[in-house]
Amino acid sequence: MDRIYLDNAATTSLDKEVLDAMLPYMTTHFGNPSSIYSYGRETRLAVENARKTVARLLGAHPGEIFFTSGGTEANNTAILASLRDLGCKHIITSPIEHHAVLHTVSHYSNDSVSHSYVKLLPDGHVDLKNLEEQLANAGVKCLVSLMHANNEIGNLLSMNAVSALCKKYDALFHSDCVQTVGHYPIDLSRIQVDFISAAGHKFHGPKGTGILYVSRELQVKPMIHGGGQERNMRAGTENIYGIVGFAKALELAMLNYEKDSVYITSLKSYMTAQLLEKIPSVSFNGDYAGSSLYTVLNASFPLTERSEMLLFNLDINNICVSGGSACSSGANQGSHVINIVSGDPNKVAIRFSFCRHNTKEEIDHVIEKLKELL
Amino acid sequence: MDRIYLDNAATTSLDKEVLDAMLPYMTTHFGNPSSIYSYGRETRLAVENARKTVARLLGAHPGEIFFTSGGTEANNTAILASLRDLGCKHIITSPIEHHAVLHTVSHYSNDSVSHSYVKLLPDGHVDLKNLEEQLANAGVKCLVSLMHANNEIGNLLSMNAVSALCKKYDALFHSDCVQTVGHYPIDLSRIQVDFISAAGHKFHGPKGTGILYVSRELQVKPMIHGGGQERNMRAGTENIYGIVGFAKALELAMLNYEKDSVYITSLKSYMTAQLLEKIPSVSFNGDYAGSSLYTVLNASFPLTERSEMLLFNLDINNICVSGGSACSSGANQGSHVINIVSGDPNKVAIRFSFCRHNTKEEIDHVIEKLKELL
Repeated sequence: MDRIYLDNAATTSLDKEVLDAMLPYMTTHFGNPSSIYSYGRETRLAVENARKTVARLLGAHPGEIFFTSGGTEANNTAILASLRDLGCKHIITSPIEHHAVLHTVSHYSNDSVSHSYVKLLPDGHVDLKNLEEQLANAGVKCLVSLMHANNEIGNLLSMNAVSALCKKYDALFHSDCVQTVGHYPIDLSRIQVDFISAAGHKFHGPKGTGILYVSRELQVKPMIHGGGQERNMRAGTENIYGIVGFAKALELAMLNYEKDSVYITSLKSYMTAQLLEKIPSVSFNGDYAGSSLYTVLNASFPLTERSEMLLFNLDINNICVSGGSACSSGANQGSHVINIVSGDPNKVAIRFSFCRHNTKEEIDHVIEKLKELL
Repeated sequence: MDRIYLDNAATTSLDKEVLDAMLPYMTTHFGNPSSIYSYGRETRLAVENARKTVARLLGAHPGEIFFTSGGTEANNTAILASLRDLGCKHIITSPIEHHAVLHTVSHYSNDSVSHSYVKLLPDGHVDLKNLEEQLANAGVKCLVSLMHANNEIGNLLSMNAVSALCKKYDALFHSDCVQTVGHYPIDLSRIQVDFISAAGHKFHGPKGTGILYVSRELQVKPMIHGGGQERNMRAGTENIYGIVGFAKALELAMLNYEKDSVYITSLKSYMTAQLLEKIPSVSFNGDYAGSSLYTVLNASFPLTERSEMLLFNLDINNICVSGGSACSSGANQGSHVINIVSGDPNKVAIRFSFCRHNTKEEIDHVIEKLKELL
């Protein structure tokens, strides 16, 4: 059997239609969008049309969308701007955020900026009561940075619930939406959030592209200084093909959302049921059957001499899955998320993450291999 | 006649061979380089091979090359790291740097970090005597940030001369090499410089890609925090195709350097001579016939009612040139470089910048049009 790719939360293949939309800007339309002549105006138009498309699909104003080099840069910018430009002195985040948030929060914590972690419920969801207590007791302006969906266990946050608490306590709200933009309809005209981040390569768009949404009520400065690109919010010659590709990928994702999400949900349900039936020792991490990404299933298997080598052996069998977030792997030191949510040293956790290209046959094959390898 | 593009200092067309090198990573090889399975190892290998190629071509160690989203991000990172991690308390730069340096320097200047501008000679070159005076009198650890070649007037800096002064006064040296990497052989094993920046799209590589060289003698932290990519120096899923394209473009540029530079030099000489012959009122900005980029010719014409509209009229005639740096245009407020170097309000400055795709026939046509339009 060909390689089976069940690591779509790490990155996805670039859609052929997205590549086709990008190619004209990699061949004939190469002008610098900041140039005032025709070549530049063509690419300026492409960038601004992409911005309008993204804004429309997210229920935002084009002036609220800033293109970045990815989700990580967007997260960094939101956190920096909240502290430097908007008076936040305390950050409340969760211990299971992506490192793009956790390490940024640590970096900027100092004598005048503190941070704390919200408590988690046993299923990995944010304890909203504890969040409210922390907000009520903070005594300074807070930034709440909580991801819309956890990239490892899939738990979905109620952005509305967090938004209401932030409003009540006059806190800013940033949400890392890297796993949900392109996978869920997000209508920012109906959610009061100050910043969201997204990355193109998580929904069949190009790597090296992302967006930062900044509510129009805020006045912030850039993290990367220089030319006047992105209305002075992000200097540097625009990655035109990346921007065009991001918008096209989001357009296709939203166009096909109903069909794709129903299909991918069925894959996750099928794999859950088959694992329970064929490998009864399995357990699942996070609120997998409840408020959870339809794209992610995080399963644990009892630790044995064989299962210790499970990721390695799956790879030998041409099955691509991950133990934790790709960004934190390399040497697999174990996932900070799994350690916190279900830290059982006698289990081996594997994240399966799906896209519309996966099939039930692939899942059958993976389960057969798991039975052999465990 | 087809559109004539003489704005190659703003951005260049993507080379077909570079695109071909990128395409496999936009189709089949899409794995996340941080993943530990085969898909990830393939792209990890591509990124590391690109790094080795770039390092070899620049006379650097692979561990000294960090991929970024472009020259602007690289410049920002170098300046931030010098101040935050390396103890620099004063920045000496020039008033004709790119805004990616000037605005970054302004941004980070505060109660504990100061900056000053080196004096320029009448031809726009850095006054090295003044630089030495400033270094000698600084009294604190200095960062010297001076571009290798000016993007508007083309003046080339003697990096060795600046390097020697920096060494004498224990200052750090950063050079924005965005206009020279890919256009000149640069052997960092023979130049003592702490940081250099480059951007792929200036030498027929992809937009959205750049590098920061950091001398291995320095220990610096990232500007963008998160995953462990780029050996913890630049978080975010790698823009694999961008990185592969950057390396391929640099490889081709260096392979063809002798041929291309001789040819492009002849275009610049031809245009200089033809302008002097056909439009005797022309004058040139910067050290155009001396230590200057072979890719850039900055000419001034007397201001008249007609020449005020020159850029606009050239555009109507399908001729793409610029008044200043693309990054600072939009509305053309006039170039800070031209204002400083030859600030004659009675002249209109135009930058012509060449690549190997340009021809003498194009230059003849442009000069004919200039005669009509002036």
